[in-house]
Amino acid sequence: MSTRIGIMGYGNLGRGVEIAVKEAPDMELAAVFTRRAPESVSILTENVPVVNTADVKDWTDKIDVMIICGGSATDLPKQTPEYAKLFNVVDSFDTHARIPEHFANVDAAAKESGHIGMISVGWDPGMFSLNRVYANAILPDGKDYTFWGKGVSQGHSDAIRRIEGVRNAKQYTIPVESALEAVRSGSQPELTTRQKHTRECFVVLEEGADAARVEKEIKEMPNYFSDYDTTVHFISEEELEKNHAGMAHGGFVFRSGKTGVNKENSHIIEYSLKLDSNPEFTTSVLVAYARAVKRMYDEGQRGCKTVLDVAPAYLCSQSGEELRAHLL
Amino acid sequence: MSTRIGIMGYGNLGRGVEIAVKEAPDMELAAVFTRRAPESVSILTENVPVVNTADVKDWTDKIDVMIICGGSATDLPKQTPEYAKLFNVVDSFDTHARIPEHFANVDAAAKESGHIGMISVGWDPGMFSLNRVYANAILPDGKDYTFWGKGVSQGHSDAIRRIEGVRNAKQYTIPVESALEAVRSGSQPELTTRQKHTRECFVVLEEGADAARVEKEIKEMPNYFSDYDTTVHFISEEELEKNHAGMAHGGFVFRSGKTGVNKENSHIIEYSLKLDSNPEFTTSVLVAYARAVKRMYDEGQRGCKTVLDVAPAYLCSQSGEELRAHLL
Repeated sequence: MSTRIGIMGYGNLGRGVEIAVKEAPDMELAAVFTRRAPESVSILTENVPVVNTADVKDWTDKIDVMIICGGSATDLPKQTPEYAKLFNVVDSFDTHARIPEHFANVDAAAKESGHIGMISVGWDPGMFSLNRVYANAILPDGKDYTFWGKGVSQGHSDAIRRIEGVRNAKQYTIPVESALEAVRSGSQPELTTRQKHTRECFVVLEEGADAARVEKEIKEMPNYFSDYDTTVHFISEEELEKNHAGMAHGGFVFRSGKTGVNKENSHIIEYSLKLDSNPEFTTSVLVAYARAVKRMYDEGQRGCKTVLDVAPAYLCSQSGEELRAHLL
Repeated sequence: MSTRIGIMGYGNLGRGVEIAVKEAPDMELAAVFTRRAPESVSILTENVPVVNTADVKDWTDKIDVMIICGGSATDLPKQTPEYAKLFNVVDSFDTHARIPEHFANVDAAAKESGHIGMISVGWDPGMFSLNRVYANAILPDGKDYTFWGKGVSQGHSDAIRRIEGVRNAKQYTIPVESALEAVRSGSQPELTTRQKHTRECFVVLEEGADAARVEKEIKEMPNYFSDYDTTVHFISEEELEKNHAGMAHGGFVFRSGKTGVNKENSHIIEYSLKLDSNPEFTTSVLVAYARAVKRMYDEGQRGCKTVLDVAPAYLCSQSGEELRAHLL
């Protein structure tokens, strides 16, 4: 029987989940839930209902896994524990510092109601975390490096938009090529924040705003920009829309480690992603973990889980035999 | 309590396991087993017995996981099922085509005796397999590429040594840089065997052997060399020992996939290893999976397992809380 998927929230992530579920031979989309008026939301899949979140309780028997497509700042800390009382859920909670707290909340809700709540699924946290954990397990004596980009940082773009005189902005985080090369050399360099990434900003000013003042405010903004080499370009709204609407992203995870009686052997593990669409890649990961949630639930597992708790075979539609014969 | 590790066979792999176990805070080496006279084998760890394999049955209560450090051609197909009757075992069986058969044999032995037999642990099969499986689960519409090297291929070196007039030889498998770049571009190229790897041979001739004939025989050898661009260098035994005794290896696993309503978005997942010591990296992976075997056994799991069946958190000495706080 197909795994019946619900989508909670229909923005970039919700649409990405919908597209990924369409491709999955063993899944079907049961319903899309929205806080908006359902008749105002048109989805890509035919014959699938759009339902107001107020009626979500009517769906507990019709959905195997609910994928929660909200934001990490305010939606998910509330939604994931709330819906874990009714469904098996998967989210992409990505505020690293608050994961232990979110885990505890979801764990309590999921255990009480007898569900699985899979949190922090995506690529960082997510695939990058997996790679950090595997590499640390294999090379306990070593050093981790994570680089992000080239890609738009929503948080940094928002920070620029809050400056007086700025109408719109996009900020790209860019890994420094020489830092990547230094890590690949096995020298285990100590890299400062400034040495790892640069920041490039494309800014649309309000009529009559002072460009020099805006540029200074960006470059001196603590936490966000003051520790980085930052470039600021002033462009028109049309240029921003035309050239900076893409959702490409990516990054690199390295572990540089030593083995040997005298630590004489150096090893580099490198994992990288180059993504045309950050939300579509994230949702592809979410859907694979929804498959795992169904299997783990059927086996009797309950409570909050992360990607670190999932055996890779659970993510695939193929059987163990097929995987061993063709991918092992 | 520490996990008590046994090492079966004391060559390059056995020594690598010994070094990795020394570094593990939660493991201790219980004994090393050898087919040789135990008094002729001197190991690196003090106060650990070297025992003849004939006496292995006396150790069933003193070892939690036996790491079997034999070769895939003849040792492991016999040893792993045999020792799975007595112990939880881990091996590095790497003959891809025979994994299903080896799995069935180990599964029967391990289930009958109530143990776990973890097979095909290392980097390919092993870490490369994991990366193929994760990437296939996330990007079901895509293409896999695996490249090996630069590193010595034992099988190809052996094939050269079987040619009349050859005293010794080392063969390097080298990925073609332009093929790597073509894959990274997202164009999903169809690559022939010749386009993916080149082969470089360093050959020591017997006194009076005909170099031209040997070179021709190498380059025309079916399966091993005829489908590749092969370079042959004739060198002295001293040069071979001095410049080609290293055990460096590595490789690349890619998945190039598409998402989107019209498959308009391209994504590249790349995983690579650059290893100074192939056996020490392999044994570092073996030891991490020995930790997982102990945990899975304590939970009640039995039978044959592969890296695809192991949740990443089981590989680490840290707790789930620590992993979520620092590596997720």
